[in-house]
Amino acid sequence: MIQTIGPETGSIHLAKWTRATKKSVLQQMLMETSRPGLISFALGLPDVNLFPTDAYLAAVEQVMAEGPTGMQYGPPFQPLKEHIVALMRRRGVECKVEQIFLTAGAQQGMNLLVRLLLDPGGSLIVEELSYTGFQQVIEPFQPNILTVSTNPKTGMEVEEVELLLRKGNRPSFIYAISDGHNPMAVSMSIEKRRRLVEIASQFGAPIIEDDAYGHICYGEELYPPLRAFDDKIVFYVGTFSKILCPGLRVGWIIAPESMMHYLSVVKEATDINTGTFTQRTISAYIDSGLLPGHIDFLRKEYRLRRDTMINAIREHFPAQSRCETPPAGIFVWVEMPGDINGFDLLRTSMSKEQVAFIPGSAFCSTGSDLRSNCIRLNFSHSAHEVIEVGVSRLARALTLLENRR
Amino acid sequence: MIQTIGPETGSIHLAKWTRATKKSVLQQMLMETSRPGLISFALGLPDVNLFPTDAYLAAVEQVMAEGPTGMQYGPPFQPLKEHIVALMRRRGVECKVEQIFLTAGAQQGMNLLVRLLLDPGGSLIVEELSYTGFQQVIEPFQPNILTVSTNPKTGMEVEEVELLLRKGNRPSFIYAISDGHNPMAVSMSIEKRRRLVEIASQFGAPIIEDDAYGHICYGEELYPPLRAFDDKIVFYVGTFSKILCPGLRVGWIIAPESMMHYLSVVKEATDINTGTFTQRTISAYIDSGLLPGHIDFLRKEYRLRRDTMINAIREHFPAQSRCETPPAGIFVWVEMPGDINGFDLLRTSMSKEQVAFIPGSAFCSTGSDLRSNCIRLNFSHSAHEVIEVGVSRLARALTLLENRR
Repeated sequence: MIQTIGPETGSIHLAKWTRATKKSVLQQMLMETSRPGLISFALGLPDVNLFPTDAYLAAVEQVMAEGPTGMQYGPPFQPLKEHIVALMRRRGVECKVEQIFLTAGAQQGMNLLVRLLLDPGGSLIVEELSYTGFQQVIEPFQPNILTVSTNPKTGMEVEEVELLLRKGNRPSFIYAISDGHNPMAVSMSIEKRRRLVEIASQFGAPIIEDDAYGHICYGEELYPPLRAFDDKIVFYVGTFSKILCPGLRVGWIIAPESMMHYLSVVKEATDINTGTFTQRTISAYIDSGLLPGHIDFLRKEYRLRRDTMINAIREHFPAQSRCETPPAGIFVWVEMPGDINGFDLLRTSMSKEQVAFIPGSAFCSTGSDLRSNCIRLNFSHSAHEVIEVGVSRLARALTLLENRR
Repeated sequence: MIQTIGPETGSIHLAKWTRATKKSVLQQMLMETSRPGLISFALGLPDVNLFPTDAYLAAVEQVMAEGPTGMQYGPPFQPLKEHIVALMRRRGVECKVEQIFLTAGAQQGMNLLVRLLLDPGGSLIVEELSYTGFQQVIEPFQPNILTVSTNPKTGMEVEEVELLLRKGNRPSFIYAISDGHNPMAVSMSIEKRRRLVEIASQFGAPIIEDDAYGHICYGEELYPPLRAFDDKIVFYVGTFSKILCPGLRVGWIIAPESMMHYLSVVKEATDINTGTFTQRTISAYIDSGLLPGHIDFLRKEYRLRRDTMINAIREHFPAQSRCETPPAGIFVWVEMPGDINGFDLLRTSMSKEQVAFIPGSAFCSTGSDLRSNCIRLNFSHSAHEVIEVGVSRLARALTLLENRR
């Protein structure tokens, strides 16, 4: 017989964090957006039709032909690390194989780094609006969250970081997204990048740099990530999820060599090692020389989708709406007229127009209702015609909501 | 320029746990045992030559032929859960798809469960000698570790567990390995299984049952795991690592349905989800109907290797040595004459005879020197002739050590 939740958990004492926890808005969306007919701009999903499936299958076959060793436990695969060093060079970062630590994706990269740097109850600096997956990582530590704001054109307000540090705060780390900010779709200005690294160094505050979207960039003026300016206090997190595919779960950390021992201890306790078979197949795929061309292909394709979305918003949304053209990443951040609430719009657009997205305040680091008139729209997952139809339907939902007042 | 460890870490404050940590003996062994010429009985590795590589490649090709969806993020793959339900039925456990939670291997299964159940500074019950990977999971919690001893013939001393509970201890959980104990290679008697579940229920103490080796069993008298006796307080951990291959990193938890929400929260914060591509390929491999036969094949092959090792030990080791024939798992536990120290033997055998293994006291939950005259030998990784040569060389190292006194 199926028990109700109450009696069953009632007899077992769970860890304290479970009392406060709720499933993330993003996971709920992942469930709901499989509804047929729904157009989803909600999640940060790449388009499956752009995956290099044939080349990847060839890589799998090659690894299998080399024998069964790839299916055994094994130390991190060195050739893959070498490929990452080369990939990072194209991103403007000089690093060494000895500074690369392989992970099961960017989420695990952040998780390991937070466990390396943060004590329960410790403090950290993060933007008021930030990636929810990061917030889930820090939650069990019940940290003292110091927030700074984000300028929609130049990124994280570094002066506010400086002020916090000058006031005597000694955070365990600063969490920063230099390119393709999630959710605000902004990239940091070059001056801010330099200054952030400078003051972080000065105060000995490590930076966790989440560069999940950094390789997906469109602008003419592209800047290297924070890691390019410093190799001692910047802990860089990268991933193959957006440039290859997310279902493989492989990413990396770039950190000082002296951190590798500690990272390997946390990693071993977490899941022993990252799937050796997948490490080798990704490495074999990159051996083929196809990755740089594939990244260029993704940039071109996603750039077109971005432009389609921006144009559709400018055409269909009310004139008081504002959005910047993102120089990197896979999101557009839309500021709607001040009295529109993102969650209200979501309810209306889901029920009346079958369009999903994430309301801006879902990303608030402090659980407040900041930027309640903003929404995050993803453009990487949908084809052009779907983006056009979806944005016009969303604008209709917005009109519906405005007329109701 | 390469920095030394001191100055580089010196400027960055790491989380407190890093002060006490050291790399596991097992990971060090994984590095050292790749030395050419060395015979390793050290790690719990399956034999790569027994992996079903052709059938697995066929499964990969099938998944790829079904389209790119398998490479996208996605919810846990239901057909794989259904396969696990069927697999567990053959292990004597009735469970439902809704009680299965997919993980990146058994290590992650334990890690998620410990985070679900244990608060920092909380208490738990574990055997004096236990799997080091479990010890790594609990270390950062700095828990109060309550230990019980293990009978080499009947397993965990359940009476000691009862005594601890009757004395008023309220542990967050009891960690138990019912079959193929690591390191002591014992399986729990049926009476102890029943009694352990009984008293755990009575005192509301959850059990984390680590069944990594349960499907690799040889005896005529096989008992179902603890989960077969209770579906409310037993949290079962299983894995494909030993029955398929470890390089894929897929395992599962069986827990009450009411726990699934909490597990999904911790899992999402850890690595979003278990590689969807691997979930599907394992499922496609099981679709082929080959898994039960493959498990039977492994049981037969490993049983022969086990017998080879036991016979070689009886032939070559001093008469005062003792070992039981393990009814499950991939290890033999050898008790040597009382004045022989396992670590001394390891040094001698590594340097003079090129044989590696793990000294028993490396598994002490409390860091003490208990069972210093015992060693753990693995038999799954080496072919018969290698086992014979290795054991005789190890016996030579033992004689060498005895003669030196």
